[in-house]
Amino acid sequence: MREHFEALDQCAANFVPLSPISFLNRAADVFAGETAVVYGDQRRTWAETAARIRRVAGGLRAKGIGLGDTVSVIAPNIPELFELHYAVPLTGGVLGAINTRLEPETIGYILEHSDSKLVIVDTELRALVDAAMAGAGLALEVIEIADTGPAPTGATYDDLATSKPLTEEGLPADEWQAIAINYTSGTSGRPKGVVYHHRGAYMMAMGTAAAWPLSYGASYLSVVPMFHCNGWCHPWATPINGAKMVFTRVPEPARLFEAIAQEKVTHFGAAPVVLQMMAESDLAPSAPFDPPINVFTAGAPPPPAILEKTAAMGMEVMHVYGLTETYGHISQCIPQSNWAGLDAAGEAEARARQGVAFPMVEPVEVVDREADAPVPRDAETQGEIAIRGNTVMKGYYKNPEATAEAFKGGKFWSGDAAVMHDDAYVKIKDRLKDVIISGGENVSSVEVEGMLYRHPDVQTAAVVAEPHEKWGEVPCAFVELREGATASEDDIMTFCKERLAGFKAPKRVVFTDIPKTSTGKIQKFKLREMLGA
Amino acid sequence: MREHFEALDQCAANFVPLSPISFLNRAADVFAGETAVVYGDQRRTWAETAARIRRVAGGLRAKGIGLGDTVSVIAPNIPELFELHYAVPLTGGVLGAINTRLEPETIGYILEHSDSKLVIVDTELRALVDAAMAGAGLALEVIEIADTGPAPTGATYDDLATSKPLTEEGLPADEWQAIAINYTSGTSGRPKGVVYHHRGAYMMAMGTAAAWPLSYGASYLSVVPMFHCNGWCHPWATPINGAKMVFTRVPEPARLFEAIAQEKVTHFGAAPVVLQMMAESDLAPSAPFDPPINVFTAGAPPPPAILEKTAAMGMEVMHVYGLTETYGHISQCIPQSNWAGLDAAGEAEARARQGVAFPMVEPVEVVDREADAPVPRDAETQGEIAIRGNTVMKGYYKNPEATAEAFKGGKFWSGDAAVMHDDAYVKIKDRLKDVIISGGENVSSVEVEGMLYRHPDVQTAAVVAEPHEKWGEVPCAFVELREGATASEDDIMTFCKERLAGFKAPKRVVFTDIPKTSTGKIQKFKLREMLGA
Repeated sequence: MREHFEALDQCAANFVPLSPISFLNRAADVFAGETAVVYGDQRRTWAETAARIRRVAGGLRAKGIGLGDTVSVIAPNIPELFELHYAVPLTGGVLGAINTRLEPETIGYILEHSDSKLVIVDTELRALVDAAMAGAGLALEVIEIADTGPAPTGATYDDLATSKPLTEEGLPADEWQAIAINYTSGTSGRPKGVVYHHRGAYMMAMGTAAAWPLSYGASYLSVVPMFHCNGWCHPWATPINGAKMVFTRVPEPARLFEAIAQEKVTHFGAAPVVLQMMAESDLAPSAPFDPPINVFTAGAPPPPAILEKTAAMGMEVMHVYGLTETYGHISQCIPQSNWAGLDAAGEAEARARQGVAFPMVEPVEVVDREADAPVPRDAETQGEIAIRGNTVMKGYYKNPEATAEAFKGGKFWSGDAAVMHDDAYVKIKDRLKDVIISGGENVSSVEVEGMLYRHPDVQTAAVVAEPHEKWGEVPCAFVELREGATASEDDIMTFCKERLAGFKAPKRVVFTDIPKTSTGKIQKFKLREMLGA
Repeated sequence: MREHFEALDQCAANFVPLSPISFLNRAADVFAGETAVVYGDQRRTWAETAARIRRVAGGLRAKGIGLGDTVSVIAPNIPELFELHYAVPLTGGVLGAINTRLEPETIGYILEHSDSKLVIVDTELRALVDAAMAGAGLALEVIEIADTGPAPTGATYDDLATSKPLTEEGLPADEWQAIAINYTSGTSGRPKGVVYHHRGAYMMAMGTAAAWPLSYGASYLSVVPMFHCNGWCHPWATPINGAKMVFTRVPEPARLFEAIAQEKVTHFGAAPVVLQMMAESDLAPSAPFDPPINVFTAGAPPPPAILEKTAAMGMEVMHVYGLTETYGHISQCIPQSNWAGLDAAGEAEARARQGVAFPMVEPVEVVDREADAPVPRDAETQGEIAIRGNTVMKGYYKNPEATAEAFKGGKFWSGDAAVMHDDAYVKIKDRLKDVIISGGENVSSVEVEGMLYRHPDVQTAAVVAEPHEKWGEVPCAFVELREGATASEDDIMTFCKERLAGFKAPKRVVFTDIPKTSTGKIQKFKLREMLGA
């Protein structure tokens, strides 16, 4: 009877706020003697790692860091940044991992906008931070991590790591509490501060452990930068089944292959461009990895050529999709048992889709915003990807307008134009703002770029709309050729015309260095400027 | 800054109540064409299963089932009981899966106490339910499932399954809402109604998928009865990675081995007694299962002999521990990498422990209740197992006193006496009330029973305290011998004396049929009555 069921209340025994801190506390006991962290000569067990994190948290607490205080970190993928994923939240603080490749002006903006109380920086990046603070008129306390860079000049991370440890359990009072803030790349306007909460970080980690899966004995290579969606939240997932996290600081093929061999790597996540680098490296091992390595890739659909090469190398590549606002991956291209019947091209096409929702989110929909209804599953009708779930951000920091806009109607609107296939798999056609409308037909810049990448001479390609008297817009291709390649504009245009509908084929090809953000994202707005669009 | 982080509110986009219904909704799309259910000639995909469940839910709704209404089910492990794990919660109702082996009087008590609005029963068990209702003076509406029993005489489950489907998403408004009620076995006094909530069921399923793990392509054999902790919540875990659930109705070795072979079973959960039956069956295959089958076992520590036999059969047995109040398993005996150095006996001993917490709960502690502190990790000092976490029950239905007692001090008190090893692994010594105190020394009845089971002639053993003038209490053993075995009381006593401390060895051995509950639990109170204790 309803009232009797409802009379049973929450108490400390049966309700615990969801937080990845639980995973660390548990791993300190459950996987006490198993290896947690490997970096060069450093090897630490989960017990040692947890103890170290608690000392760092104690040091941060002693510096006054507490509930709702932002601690910014500027460092490559090294153990310290991993440790701070727990040490900062243990104090009640909010981790702000800042992209190391940003220009000083943007870093200054982020430090100021995020109300950072403290900055922790790898000494190689100290000058960058100093410039950023000088530009923004900030004088924040700085703590230096000594790794490969110059000797520290002031307070150091090692001081933190030798502090009196924080001993309380460290769970938040409320699972809705902020745990991290990650700034968008700001392809249009100022970057926005995306706030994550403990509940979402917990669900992201648990869902990833369950559905990648990241199981016992996993050896995880840290490639995806931890300043991107907190490394897709993988640092919070590794303690669940006691995985080992292997660091190389820099994602160079030489270091990655060495780490894979030495630490018997079983899992990593990386952008397609890193997979391409690995696949085309002279250092790639001659025999495929055995057992195969499980790889998440995201950021762009992996071109079929890369899928083929990585499969030959012994990588099980799973294409995943997500945004900073969704803590990283929220859909994955799970291979279905009936794909066994597909030929290589068909399978590559199936695998390059954005796929289906992870178990920790609700269905990932493709919605016709005007009709406020899902598009038909016809692989043709475009709509916008909309997401609902517990791994959608708390909101944009100090930006209620953008937050309200993003959550209009109770869904998070991704800004990605996509179609829905009949098997419920999503395929992105384009960023909404990158769709080219030519003679009333939608042209997906992604589709045209995919075709350009099939040309053996093309290294990098980007397609944008060029104004056109008759058709309104036409596709214009920007291309970087491979070293020594000689393809002409005609060659490329003909290659496309033979393989694409006429209205999709580029009407112009520009050979140039393609402008990219510090994170490697192509800046299409600069290309449009070049066209006077 | 705290106030800016706290200003970001929950909305439909970023907060979804945790419920296993999400997993079903997702599997209907993501694993639409993959097999969900196999039973005899029945084979259904996840799309078909979800559609069927939605029709059953529609039928229940049409019968007036809604928020907080208990629907009781009395059936063996067949697809209908699995479907009701979703269909009842979809209506907002609460599933009450009742043990089919209970006597009519207890079933009558449960139907009445749980405020059941409807009873769904397998026709083989119709007479039992009629007797239960007659005894309790109840006249509830009954719906019959036609399987192997007589033809139905009234409303049937097939009627439900052809109803107009329930189309709304079906998530609860509040994740704290009740989803199921499971009655304890009531070894002392009336059974208590343990209430589960959606959040706990979700976390139990996700944690099990992550940490068993129950991954893609899993073929799960339904052995553990779904009326025990909802089959350890496995029915809510299978859709996460699209596992197939295989039913045999009855857990006979013949049917189990057949199903394992036909459906390439990869996972199941079962009590040690079922594993013993399988290991000793003539029908056991001569070659070990390849790949090995992942098995959860619980209910009693698996004796080393069983672990050896099942390992030889190609079963990876993971000992798990839990109670009805914790939704089933909350600790697991995860093998550590350094166990590779143990000999067979050492490994069996390590593996027979109750182990460490699952990732969805907080640390499982062994607490000295008087000192209100964890016992030292010396493998000697006894305390009581106490648990805190999101998979601890909502409480006992209509029993605030028992609920308050169980949750005293913000922990759930298991009633199990245990020690903590230095590797943080828990080992149960006894039910608190079964500890024998002889000459001031604690004797674990479980330990003595474990020794008795090592005797080749012993089929079943139970040890209880017998009053003694000098020592206060001494251990008395009750033994069922194997068929054709001839061991004498002296043989058994000598066997124990040679292997146990003197105060632990039984001072008397009684050969008898050991009384058990309908669920197979040994009724030690009856043994004590036989001794006049």
